[in-house]
Amino acid sequence: MTAAVGDPPTIDDVRAAAVRIEGHVHRTPVMTSATIDALVGCRVHLKAEHLQRGGAFKARGALNAVLALDDETAARGVAAHSSGNHAAALALAARQRGVPCHVVMPSTAPRSKQEATAGYGAEVTLCEPTLAAREAALAEVIDRTGATEVHPYDHPAVIAGQGTATLELLEQVPAIGVVVVPVSGGGLASGTAIAARGHDPSVAVWGVEPAGVADAQRSLTAGQRITEGNTTSIADGLLAVLSERTFSILQAHEVGIVTVTDDEIRAAMALLATRLKQVVEPSGATALAGLLAQARGGAALPGDVGVIVSGGNVDLDRLPVLLGSPS
Amino acid sequence: MTAAVGDPPTIDDVRAAAVRIEGHVHRTPVMTSATIDALVGCRVHLKAEHLQRGGAFKARGALNAVLALDDETAARGVAAHSSGNHAAALALAARQRGVPCHVVMPSTAPRSKQEATAGYGAEVTLCEPTLAAREAALAEVIDRTGATEVHPYDHPAVIAGQGTATLELLEQVPAIGVVVVPVSGGGLASGTAIAARGHDPSVAVWGVEPAGVADAQRSLTAGQRITEGNTTSIADGLLAVLSERTFSILQAHEVGIVTVTDDEIRAAMALLATRLKQVVEPSGATALAGLLAQARGGAALPGDVGVIVSGGNVDLDRLPVLLGSPS
Repeated sequence: MTAAVGDPPTIDDVRAAAVRIEGHVHRTPVMTSATIDALVGCRVHLKAEHLQRGGAFKARGALNAVLALDDETAARGVAAHSSGNHAAALALAARQRGVPCHVVMPSTAPRSKQEATAGYGAEVTLCEPTLAAREAALAEVIDRTGATEVHPYDHPAVIAGQGTATLELLEQVPAIGVVVVPVSGGGLASGTAIAARGHDPSVAVWGVEPAGVADAQRSLTAGQRITEGNTTSIADGLLAVLSERTFSILQAHEVGIVTVTDDEIRAAMALLATRLKQVVEPSGATALAGLLAQARGGAALPGDVGVIVSGGNVDLDRLPVLLGSPS
Repeated sequence: MTAAVGDPPTIDDVRAAAVRIEGHVHRTPVMTSATIDALVGCRVHLKAEHLQRGGAFKARGALNAVLALDDETAARGVAAHSSGNHAAALALAARQRGVPCHVVMPSTAPRSKQEATAGYGAEVTLCEPTLAAREAALAEVIDRTGATEVHPYDHPAVIAGQGTATLELLEQVPAIGVVVVPVSGGGLASGTAIAARGHDPSVAVWGVEPAGVADAQRSLTAGQRITEGNTTSIADGLLAVLSERTFSILQAHEVGIVTVTDDEIRAAMALLATRLKQVVEPSGATALAGLLAQARGGAALPGDVGVIVSGGNVDLDRLPVLLGSPS
C-alpha cells in the first residue's frame, strides 16, 4: 500500500519497498578507484545503478509502484510521460506484472531510451517536447485506456523505491558518512534522504544538480519552491524541477545542494570511462562531479562517501560530444 | 620457479601462478546480458579483465613473472618493450615487488597506456614504431641496467599467469563448455588453453584474431608458423604474431581460430558499451566479436560460453572513431 498523497514516505516504506522489489531488480555492485579516492581525498564508494535493470535506478521506483497496485487497478495498465529512464523502467515493471504500459515521450528523448521502452513492450506515443504537449497526450491515453498514472517522481511509492538503492549501499558499506545523489524532480534525492537519515541520522545527504537547472538550490535557499529559471544542461535526465512533495522532503531532511557545470559533468564522465571503464550518462556522472567540486572547494569530508551513479543510457553517437575535452 | 625455455607451462604452473599472484590482482567479475545471450543463442559469461588492475589481464602474467624472480635478479630490475598493456602491467608488478622497471614503447602507443606506465613509476623510453627500433632500444636499456627482460608473451611464467583468468572463470561458472579468447602473440591464448583443457579436457578454446593480422589462423592451418602477411587492425593490442612457443601450445591444445573484421570488433565494442555500460578497447571486444560471428555462421555452441574481455584501455579521443557506425 502506498501512503496517501501528502504523507511523505518513511524509512519503513523504503524497507517495505526493498522486500517488494527483491528479485526483480539487481543488487548493484559498489565500485572504487584509487585515482578517484586520491582526487577527492577520501574513500569514494560508487553505487553502480547504471548496471541496474533498464540501465538506471528508475526500475526500483517503478517496480515498487506497479507491484503495489491492486490486481483490478493493475489490469487496466499504467501510464506516464517521461523523457527517458522512467519510461523504460515503467515498461519493465509493467511487463513484470503482466499489465499494459503506455508511455508518452517527447520526440527529443534519446533514441536509446525510446528503443528500450518499446523493447520492453510499452506502447510509446511521441509528442512535442513541451510539458503542455506531454500532459495533454498523457491525459488522452489515460482517458482512452483507464490506465493508472505512475508519476516519475511525485509519487510516494516511487520515492520509497528509489530509496532502496541507498539502503543497499549502506548495507554494503556501513562506514559511509555522506551520500551524494543527483537532483532533478527529486524522487531519487527524496528516497535517498529518507533511507540514509532514517537508517542513521548522522549520515548526511548532498544533492547535486546542474548549474543550468538549479531550482533545488534556489528553492532550499529561499525556503520555498521556486520553479522559474533556466533549464538547460547536457544532463538530459536532470531537467525536471522539484514538486511540492519532494521539496518538502529535501527540506525536512536538510539535504545540502551542490551545483556543477556541464564541463564538470563531462570531466566526471571521462573519469568514470577511463578509470573505471564505465559508460554513464551525464546525469549518472553528476553526483561524482559534485563531490569532486566539493573536494576542490575544501569541503570537510568523512572517511567514506557514497555516490549514486544513477544511469548509463546514452546514445553512442552523443558520446563524442559528451566525452570531448571540456571547453 | 618458471619452467626452462622450451618446456611449455602446465596446468600446475597456472595453479601455482594463481597462488603466487593472489591478493595482488583482482578476482574480476563475470558479466552477463540477456541481449547478448539472445544474439548468440546461449548463455554468454564475460570475464571482465578490463576491470583488472591496470585495466587488462596483463597484470596477471607480469606479476607472476616478476614475483617468481629471485631477490638478487629482481633487484636489478625488469624491462620490456611493449606498445601498451604489458608495459603498464610490468610497471605495476615491479612497483609491487619494489624493483626498477624500464619500458621501451613505440611513440605511436596510445597516450593512455604511456601515461599509465609512467604513472606506475616505470622509466619509459619512447622509440620509433618498428620492431628493430624497439629491440635496439631494449638491448641498450638492459645493457645499461642489468635488468631482466620479461617478454610480453614468449615467456612461460607470463603464459602461466595469463591462464589464471580462465582458471577463475571456470571456478565462477563451472558449466562453461567453450572459452573464447583474443589471439595476438599468443600469451593469453596459450595460458587459456593450458588452463581450460588442463582443468577439463572437454572444454574447447577458440582464439579470435583480426582478419588483418591472421597469422594464427594461417599458421595453425598450415601446421607451421607463418609470420608474413598483413598486420593492420583497429585492435592495437593484437598486432603481434605467435612465437614458436605459443604456436606449439595452441597447436597441441587444438585451439580453433576465428577471424573478425574491424567492423565486427567495433560492433562488439558498441554492444558492450550500450548493453553492459562497459568501456573496452578494441582488443577487449574481439573475443565477443568472434563468438557473435560464429553464432551468425551457425556454429554449434554449448549452453554456456566464456568470453575473455581482455582490456579496457582506450584513449577517449579515439572512442568516437571506434564506436562509430560500422561502414
